[in-house]
Amino acid sequence: MSARIERLLPRLEEPLLVTNPVNVRYLTGFDSSNAALLVELERVRLYTDFRYIETARAVEGVEPVQTKRSLIGWLAAELDGRIGFEANVLPWALAEELRGGGIELVPRTGLVESLRRVKDETELVAFRGACAITDRMFERLVAEVGFVGRRERDVAWDVSRLYHEEGAEELAFETIVGSGPTGARPHARAGDREIGEGELVVIDTGCRVGGYCSDYTRTLATGELDGEMQDAYEVVRAAQQAGLDAIRAGVTGIDADAAARDVIEASDFAGAFGHGLGHGLGLDVHEAPRLSTESADTLETGNVVTVEPGVYLEGRFGIRIEDDVVVTADGIENPVRFTKELVTVS
Amino acid sequence: MSARIERLLPRLEEPLLVTNPVNVRYLTGFDSSNAALLVELERVRLYTDFRYIETARAVEGVEPVQTKRSLIGWLAAELDGRIGFEANVLPWALAEELRGGGIELVPRTGLVESLRRVKDETELVAFRGACAITDRMFERLVAEVGFVGRRERDVAWDVSRLYHEEGAEELAFETIVGSGPTGARPHARAGDREIGEGELVVIDTGCRVGGYCSDYTRTLATGELDGEMQDAYEVVRAAQQAGLDAIRAGVTGIDADAAARDVIEASDFAGAFGHGLGHGLGLDVHEAPRLSTESADTLETGNVVTVEPGVYLEGRFGIRIEDDVVVTADGIENPVRFTKELVTVS
Repeated sequence: MSARIERLLPRLEEPLLVTNPVNVRYLTGFDSSNAALLVELERVRLYTDFRYIETARAVEGVEPVQTKRSLIGWLAAELDGRIGFEANVLPWALAEELRGGGIELVPRTGLVESLRRVKDETELVAFRGACAITDRMFERLVAEVGFVGRRERDVAWDVSRLYHEEGAEELAFETIVGSGPTGARPHARAGDREIGEGELVVIDTGCRVGGYCSDYTRTLATGELDGEMQDAYEVVRAAQQAGLDAIRAGVTGIDADAAARDVIEASDFAGAFGHGLGHGLGLDVHEAPRLSTESADTLETGNVVTVEPGVYLEGRFGIRIEDDVVVTADGIENPVRFTKELVTVS
Repeated sequence: MSARIERLLPRLEEPLLVTNPVNVRYLTGFDSSNAALLVELERVRLYTDFRYIETARAVEGVEPVQTKRSLIGWLAAELDGRIGFEANVLPWALAEELRGGGIELVPRTGLVESLRRVKDETELVAFRGACAITDRMFERLVAEVGFVGRRERDVAWDVSRLYHEEGAEELAFETIVGSGPTGARPHARAGDREIGEGELVVIDTGCRVGGYCSDYTRTLATGELDGEMQDAYEVVRAAQQAGLDAIRAGVTGIDADAAARDVIEASDFAGAFGHGLGHGLGLDVHEAPRLSTESADTLETGNVVTVEPGVYLEGRFGIRIEDDVVVTADGIENPVRFTKELVTVS
């Protein structure tokens, strides 16, 4: 039984059927799109179909069980008794299918996710590795890649290429390259827009090492900026620093968010920061805890969170600056090395 | 109101809350990770948060509504009355959240998916475009790329690079490169294994155009193969042809599967084809209809399906050959041009 499963056991009031693939991976190392784990005090069964069963047999501390492709239907016929399930993940109809098979289902949420909030050293090593690659990618991006006159999607491809050359497993998510007015849409993808001179370009990107994500944003200048753009950049940078300064174990997600938000609200750009300050980062790009005006979380030592305030002026430009940090008892460890000075590219 | 939404309306017994992002995209063209669509006879509302609302405002025939990031929680407070929901997609806890807000929820499954099974000409144009790019990628892969002595993951990267150079939007899924014994695991990813001489290498890959997927498999030889490998290749090729020959509108998924499976079962490789013959292909890589021993589907004109029998000998090698075809009244349209003769690479 893995150490992570042993940490999960005291939290269970009944056997837990884990169906979130990321949670299965976290608990066992087994990475499959069609798997479930039934965690009981005395045994742990790993269910998967033909395609993955050979890999499942190599997982230590679990009993591999081969199912049909319709894994939940197979389990409905196979299992009985009182079983907890991941109610925030399992689709309604599949839960009803299990119930229809005679299982007494107990909805549970966040049991494995609450373990995943606090990273162990193995996880932090992978995370720091992803950050180191992202730093090298950004260094090369601003040194080697052309921006002006090229399409956003071509720059995004260069990001992919540089990650590959620097040894990333894969991208953590589709790279955002938002130039000029596109940058004002915080989650616009890299499109066909040709990047102009004297613009701001938001680059939001991350990679994975050992499954663990990095997630950086830098906003670059393509030549001389007007005064408002320069002012906005300095406001976002100051807000980001205020956010970083506020973070330590025991601080709420609301207070961390407010530390950065207050800087923007006190500036000429009040009202232009329309999303939360940050989110947890791990095997998922977005996980607990959250830093936002609506957060119910309090930061703990070992959380990994993004700190990413922004200013968005519709139809004109956007600016976002994002680091990823480890929460410690008295502050943060910030593994991000790439500069936050305004970098001009051509 | 879009033509697709108009086709959906007669199938509804009450307003339908569409939460599957792929279904939202199919009905409206709006592509977001946090959106929902409420389809009623007289109006269609498109819900999304701050990040995507500007894009949502450009969608024709819908009323854009800005919600909080917790979209379902926001809807629970906002909506009431009798509403259908996508029970095979919406997590159990979110359905309960809607119900707790006073909505009389009706579980529905497959309403939009049943429309998506039959592709219209716009969809087929995108699909054929993805196939044309995949053909060119394979032609260049076997002509330009080295295999022997390189890692599977390096070949997978070359696949990505060639797709980019040929104009693909993105990969449809992570490319599988399974060499030697890795090929016996139908869904093994491209790993660190160094490809040897005289091996079989399974390449399973696809790209997207306009959101629509291609999904091909070819199995290549790295030099002279032993007699068993050659025999197995010919058996899979004959099985794949038998599958293609069997497909036309009105044939069941079970019968199409059996046509290919019978060829393998009658050979020295009986029992070595452990998955279904194929699956529908569209905005999702796996969608309806299914071709398998467990399929409940009957093929219709306008379905797009994969045809991909294989032989897998654990610890030794795997072979799979896969085309993507459009079902017609009297057979198929097969847009796949890349050869199924055994190709030897070095």
